[in-house]
Amino acid sequence: MDINTIAKKAKEASIRLAAVSTEEKDKGLERIAQALLDRQEEILAANRADLQRSEEEALGAPLLKRLKFDQAKIREVVDGIRSLIGLPDPVGKVLMETELDEGLLLVKESCPIGVIGIIFESRPDALVQISSLCLKSGNAVLLKGGSEARETNRILSQVIQDATQGAQIPQGWLHNLATREDVQGLLKLDEWIDLIIPRGSNEFVRHIMDNSRIPVLGHADGICHGYIHEDADLEMAVRVANDSKTQYVAVCNAMETLLVHKGIAPRVLPPLAEKLKESNVKILGCPRTRALIPCVEATEEDWKTEYLDYTLSIKVVDNLMEAIDHINTYGSGHTETILTQSQETADIFMDLVDAGNVFHNCSTRFSDGLRYGFGAEVGISTNKIHARGPVGLEGLMIYKYKLEGNGHIVKEYSDGVKKFHHKYLR
Amino acid sequence: MDINTIAKKAKEASIRLAAVSTEEKDKGLERIAQALLDRQEEILAANRADLQRSEEEALGAPLLKRLKFDQAKIREVVDGIRSLIGLPDPVGKVLMETELDEGLLLVKESCPIGVIGIIFESRPDALVQISSLCLKSGNAVLLKGGSEARETNRILSQVIQDATQGAQIPQGWLHNLATREDVQGLLKLDEWIDLIIPRGSNEFVRHIMDNSRIPVLGHADGICHGYIHEDADLEMAVRVANDSKTQYVAVCNAMETLLVHKGIAPRVLPPLAEKLKESNVKILGCPRTRALIPCVEATEEDWKTEYLDYTLSIKVVDNLMEAIDHINTYGSGHTETILTQSQETADIFMDLVDAGNVFHNCSTRFSDGLRYGFGAEVGISTNKIHARGPVGLEGLMIYKYKLEGNGHIVKEYSDGVKKFHHKYLR
Repeated sequence: MDINTIAKKAKEASIRLAAVSTEEKDKGLERIAQALLDRQEEILAANRADLQRSEEEALGAPLLKRLKFDQAKIREVVDGIRSLIGLPDPVGKVLMETELDEGLLLVKESCPIGVIGIIFESRPDALVQISSLCLKSGNAVLLKGGSEARETNRILSQVIQDATQGAQIPQGWLHNLATREDVQGLLKLDEWIDLIIPRGSNEFVRHIMDNSRIPVLGHADGICHGYIHEDADLEMAVRVANDSKTQYVAVCNAMETLLVHKGIAPRVLPPLAEKLKESNVKILGCPRTRALIPCVEATEEDWKTEYLDYTLSIKVVDNLMEAIDHINTYGSGHTETILTQSQETADIFMDLVDAGNVFHNCSTRFSDGLRYGFGAEVGISTNKIHARGPVGLEGLMIYKYKLEGNGHIVKEYSDGVKKFHHKYLR
Repeated sequence: MDINTIAKKAKEASIRLAAVSTEEKDKGLERIAQALLDRQEEILAANRADLQRSEEEALGAPLLKRLKFDQAKIREVVDGIRSLIGLPDPVGKVLMETELDEGLLLVKESCPIGVIGIIFESRPDALVQISSLCLKSGNAVLLKGGSEARETNRILSQVIQDATQGAQIPQGWLHNLATREDVQGLLKLDEWIDLIIPRGSNEFVRHIMDNSRIPVLGHADGICHGYIHEDADLEMAVRVANDSKTQYVAVCNAMETLLVHKGIAPRVLPPLAEKLKESNVKILGCPRTRALIPCVEATEEDWKTEYLDYTLSIKVVDNLMEAIDHINTYGSGHTETILTQSQETADIFMDLVDAGNVFHNCSTRFSDGLRYGFGAEVGISTNKIHARGPVGLEGLMIYKYKLEGNGHIVKEYSDGVKKFHHKYLR
């Protein structure tokens, strides 16, 4: 099947999937969970093939680790699916209810978006997580994983398709795209595809955003900041800044730039530099930072850089507003944290910083769907519309207005024969 | 000021406006209302100039009517602003609250989107409505109205700016763009502008959508359908179909195609044709329609056409599913209505039709922000993400996640020293 036919079938399936009952969807999810366990030999064999080929192709150790999909991982994704079954159905929630007039009832009701195209990196568990989130939320999904995981992704999507074919889930609701050309084709199909969620490098996400009329949900950069205010607890500041930078450097919610109030810089920078040395963090500092700790000179370019590495840029600022302005200028709207003992200062920071996740006295690394208790996430968004921050089931929903009448026509209201009374019921 | 500076200033203002209190925003709105009354002589004079010039330029009568902004209109927009003051502040609503662990509290809170660019047609009252919706929702706004209303728009935005300058509203939150070049410039400023809402012709909206990386909220087509099911009440079907088509033909929620079940077509089409003749509606029909009533032959092109005129295409269908498929194929996701006496049939239609507004036994003409009780609307959206249907205050909102900790770091959770307990408080 060509990508056009696949997408058209997905659209048709999505229309029917939107009306499938919670019970049937949960049954489908349980069948997927069971099939993943029953067919684990096939899955493990496919993954071994991917691993062997990738080793031969000299894929780096961290990527090989992400590619590995063993019994423990299967157990994990099955647990994930079963916890999803327990969550309430996000479809059909009444978000608003207004009686416009006698017998004329307006209901705003949540419904699936339709067809989601998801392009993701090497971890095969992402395929299972994303597919089950889409099924639970009633969305059809076109998936394209990294080519290094192609055998694992092929068998996983086959297992999921087979499992749901027996249930009352419309065929064609899920399709695994095999080629890079399919992705290029997918970007053009705004008639059938409603939303694209790309997960990958900055360049890759930007390429998608620049080459499609389909709305894109996701993030390119993750330039996250910490700001240590004058009155911060010294020990806490060192601890949180260190965790934000070093707990896992290769991810979008790791801190890239630290801002420090000039009044606390002489006391907090030396012990922090000491702590960061334990992880061999390279520090790039502004002139005032360099006067306090040994470090390389930071340039304008550093404030715009997502290192994704053991590297940190540090700037000393005069006050809270300078920190906020710096973040709103150079930040990517991802995750920003302030260290302060004053709730009032924290509130100003959290209100004025324009980002999806604004934190007080805790590590930037907390911005994550699992940590937020969403069960799973399809990605993290830095968009300013629709969904922001970690995106779980709710980010895959939209709504429709349903209006129930009894022969009501507009002419009577326009002529003044009848009047709206707008009873806001919910 | 060039458009880049204007947009940058609007962004700065939007950051501060996001944190302005409800009281101050409402005070600003009341000052606007008062200023519109106090300075009505200036406004009326500017509008007279626009009207005179437009008459000289031979603008059509309907457009002249829309352009007119008299004392009654001023009274109307002032009433609109005052009703907006009475509505709850959409900013800072707690949408979700989860205790992730002891002392680690996650709050999902509504906040403004930021800077909205709105390009609208000739009605000057739209400028006041849109500005006040943006102020109430804490968004900065760049406005570009039709050039025929340029003097009225200039004085209206001046009055609004002057009125809010005295209040605690950040300067630069509103700017009236004067030239067509400004609009072209605006489309490129995705760094400062978060959302564009275009209101105008299909071609115009498509041009905007194709020429900007900024998300666009709105609709190009409004190809709305009615479907008369086999069991519909005959009199009601004629009445609602007639209202959907003829009550106001030049608007996006007017019906363009009527689908009729074959079982009721012989009984409903003749009296409907009779009724539509009163408004001189031109009918284009499929072969089965033409066998029942006198009409021109409809072509494939007709199912894709938004007439915005006294013209209606009619198709006889075999069953409910054919009607649903036709609507999902040719409809633009705007407003679709079914006439049936069966609630079960209506529910299937409303669940399976993929549109922002799905109606049962009432006219398509009801899809409108004022009729829905939103107080006002910035436009109607056929998007599948963020906001759908008439867009009022809520469509101008997004949210941020605020996380309050007490020195919490991720390493402890990753090492298993601590565990999330995820108490879903709201």
